[in-house]
This record gives sequence, structure tokens and C-alpha cells, in this order.
Amino acid sequence: MRRSAFFISDGTGITAEALGLSLLSQFGGIEFNRITLPYIDTEEKAIEVVKKITLAAEEDDAKPIIFDTVVNHNIRDIISQSEGFMVDIFSAFLAPLEKELDTSSSYSVGKLHSINHNNHYSIRIEAMNFALENDDGAVTRNYEEADLILVGVSRCGKTPTCIYMALQFGIKAANYPITEEDLEEMRLPKVLRPFKQKVFGLTINADRLKAIRQERRPDSRYSSDRQCQEEIRDVESMFRREGIPFLDTTHHSIEEISTKMIAEKGIKRHI
Amino acid sequence: MRRSAFFISDGTGITAEALGLSLLSQFGGIEFNRITLPYIDTEEKAIEVVKKITLAAEEDDAKPIIFDTVVNHNIRDIISQSEGFMVDIFSAFLAPLEKELDTSSSYSVGKLHSINHNNHYSIRIEAMNFALENDDGAVTRNYEEADLILVGVSRCGKTPTCIYMALQFGIKAANYPITEEDLEEMRLPKVLRPFKQKVFGLTINADRLKAIRQERRPDSRYSSDRQCQEEIRDVESMFRREGIPFLDTTHHSIEEISTKMIAEKGIKRHI
Repeated sequence: MRRSAFFISDGTGITAEALGLSLLSQFGGIEFNRITLPYIDTEEKAIEVVKKITLAAEEDDAKPIIFDTVVNHNIRDIISQSEGFMVDIFSAFLAPLEKELDTSSSYSVGKLHSINHNNHYSIRIEAMNFALENDDGAVTRNYEEADLILVGVSRCGKTPTCIYMALQFGIKAANYPITEEDLEEMRLPKVLRPFKQKVFGLTINADRLKAIRQERRPDSRYSSDRQCQEEIRDVESMFRREGIPFLDTTHHSIEEISTKMIAEKGIKRHI
Repeated sequence: MRRSAFFISDGTGITAEALGLSLLSQFGGIEFNRITLPYIDTEEKAIEVVKKITLAAEEDDAKPIIFDTVVNHNIRDIISQSEGFMVDIFSAFLAPLEKELDTSSSYSVGKLHSINHNNHYSIRIEAMNFALENDDGAVTRNYEEADLILVGVSRCGKTPTCIYMALQFGIKAANYPITEEDLEEMRLPKVLRPFKQKVFGLTINADRLKAIRQERRPDSRYSSDRQCQEEIRDVESMFRREGIPFLDTTHHSIEEISTKMIAEKGIKRHI
């Protein structure tokens, strides 16, 4: 069984998509053909959308599911006349919220990801520059300024996690690779010791690490079974000995790792 | 007037927060005190949440607004007994969706950002590594592989946009800085010409550019009024002459710029 799912917005479509995917993920047996249509901000565009929905309904021989976060009434009215099954987020919740808050909503378009409304641009960019400059132990003099210092063996997922936390939460996260030499000492590297409270460890399944390293340097010592197993064993034992909290990235997404660390360390988000 | 707004989830909380902020952004006159509570996945944690809501209700002397995406019935029931005003996304939409899709939902927790469900981890990481390796014109030999090549003057917003597109959509975006020398030639740099179809320009308001560059190199020629104005004027005129589409990053968020480029160029998302 196949169904089309439309995510329609007058803004970026990111919220409609996030909510829609979250709801659809509860229906595992159905294959959804996903179509995101952002910036539907004129009646002309809405009419085109209705045509696409009609076409999908014919092809699937079933109502497409429509997740929309369009604010403008007229545009939403046009879309609601399509053959889709509307999950109309704003209709469902704006009226009750208006009542509860005893105020009218402004029904203004695309506010969430708009820079005017949400003046976090420079915080995010500064945090991202921090993550890039303090990636992979390249620089260690800025740890005073860091919200968090991620440590772990090469290719365990430190860089993407740091960058995600910068973009999503404005958190300044540096990262430092734990090398074989560090592991021989069986201690946290000296440069990190004064900042131990900010240090968080990442680990990963050895087979998965091997697969990732193989792509980088195939058939090297670096990507050998033995090397990966030893590094992981030693780094986890170092984390335990030093009392450094750590998470396994093997079965968790970047979003999960980031939000778990924030919760566990009680890190203040800047966004 | 002040209100507390809780975003509660058994997963990362990202969806509850995105939807909640989107709805609250329609109520500009009210200051919301935002509290995100992720990983509320046991009844014990739900009881703690209720206490927090009660406390906020007393402090604000008004019902906190609760946006929740908790899937588990028992946990949701506990939260719904709080003094908050529930915007219960799953209750509102899951039952109608079950009917329309003629199937039961699995009511399983935190699926959206779970790596098991959403096997996009390696696509994102590969795209992010591509963005980092091909940042700032550092390497130009991989343009064949790029989905997009962003160009613009130094500090106009290329790097964060490339990285965001990698993380959010798995798109491989390189970026290339347009220098004064390039601008003197008044043409697209030679190395980019074979890939013109993939090139997209970014521009920025000269005052804003100056402010950003001032932080980097204060009181330099690089950050002078004249330099910023000239570079922006010349790069926009080069974009026009070469027929390269471009966007102004001054008044748009990274999300907006990224989704607009994707829509305009018809780029295929890999996630």
C-alpha cells in the first residue's frame, strides 16, 4: 500500500515536515511518498498545489495526507478543497490557543524560521565558527569559552555532533580526539584536565567504527578490527576511570546524542 | 504578561518545540518562558513534569501552555492531569489518521529522530564531511560530485548554509569565495565555469557585512565601508551578468536560504 504525504507551508516547510514525519512514523506498515512544498504563499501557488494533490490521489487511488502549517486563511481554504486528508495544525490549535491566551493571533506567515522574528542568527554563527575552529583538537586555548568539550577516538561522531549543537542550540562545543598515545597513559589528556567538568565522551561499536574508518583509509592498521576494538575498549575504560559521562553513538542519531548530553550535563542552551 | 510554555516529549523534544514555537510565534504580544523537557519516558518522570507545571502555574498565575508529543498513553494521561493547557498533538491527530489509513498506529516512542527508524546517518555525515572538505574553495576537484556550489564574498554566510543543507537534507554543497581578483575580472572564476549549472550566489547588505567582518578583523581594509560596499556591488553585478541566481542573506535565516535555494534550483534532497 502506498500513500502520498504532502507537507505544505508558507514558510520553509520544516515544521510541517517534522510534525508530519513524526505522526507518520507511527504507521510503520505504510510506504509514504513524501512531497514537501515550501513557500506556498499565494493563491496561485495554492491552486497548483491542489492540482498536485489531485494527481497524487489518482495515482495512489487513495487520499493523500496533507500536513499544513499555512497561516493565511485564503490559501488554507484553497488547499482544504483538495482531495487530500487534511491534518490542519493551525486550525486545530490556533483557535483554542487564542481563547486560552485571550488574544488574537497575528496569522503572520513563516515566523518561526524568519530571521526578523528570531534574532538568533549571530549566536548560531558564532557557535558554529567556534565548533569549526576548535574541531579535532586543532586549537586548545579556547576551552575556557566552551560550553562543552567532546572527546572520543577518531571517527566516533564528534564533529557532526558539535556542529549540530551549534546550529540548533547555539552551544559552543569543542572536540578533542583521544589518540593511541593518550590511551597508553590511561588518563584524560593533560590539556583537558582543568576543564573536566565540561568534558563528555562519545563511544561507538567497534564494527561500526571499522566500517567508517574503512571508507577513510581502507585496509590500514587504522581501520583494522584489532585497532578499532582496542581503542574502543581502552577509551571506555578511561572514561569510567576518570568518571567522564559518555554515550554510544552507534544506535542514536545526532539529535538524540545532542539532546541527551544537554539534558545530562544540564547545559544552558543559547537559543 | 508572562506565560510558561512547556515542550514535552519522550524523544528529543525537537518536534514538540518546533511546532510549539511555530504556534506561539503567532502571539507576538506575550512573553513566553520556554521549557523543553525531552526524554520523558517513564511515569516517574511524568510526575516530576506535573510538579514543574504546577510550580510554573503558581508563579505565572496562569495556565502554562503544554505542547506534547509523548506517544505513551499512560505518560500522556499523567501530564494531562496537570494544570497546563494541553496542545496534545498526538491525541488530536493520531485517531483521525488511524481511521483514514485504516490501520493502528504503533504508538512507539521517539521514532522520528531515532537512528534505527531513520537510516540517514551516513548520508548526513558524508554530506557534512563533503561540506567541510570543500569549504572556502579549499579543494576544487570535487565539484563533479557536488549538488550545489555556493559562491559569494568572504563572510556572506556560505559555510553555515552548506553545513545546514548537509545536516538537514543530506545535500552536498561546496562553497567558493569570490575574491577581489575574481571581481576585477568581472567573470565567474574559471574553475567554476564548467559547473555553472550548480552555482548559486549569496549576497548580503554592505552594513551587515561590515559588522560581521569587524568582529573578525577590526578596523582593517577588509572590514571598511568602502571595501564592503564595492565587493557587494561588484559581486551582484557579476551574478547578474553571468545569469547566476542569488539570494540576500541579510533578512533570511539559514533555514530560509537553504529551502529557497532547493526550491529554486530544484535540487533533489537525499533525506
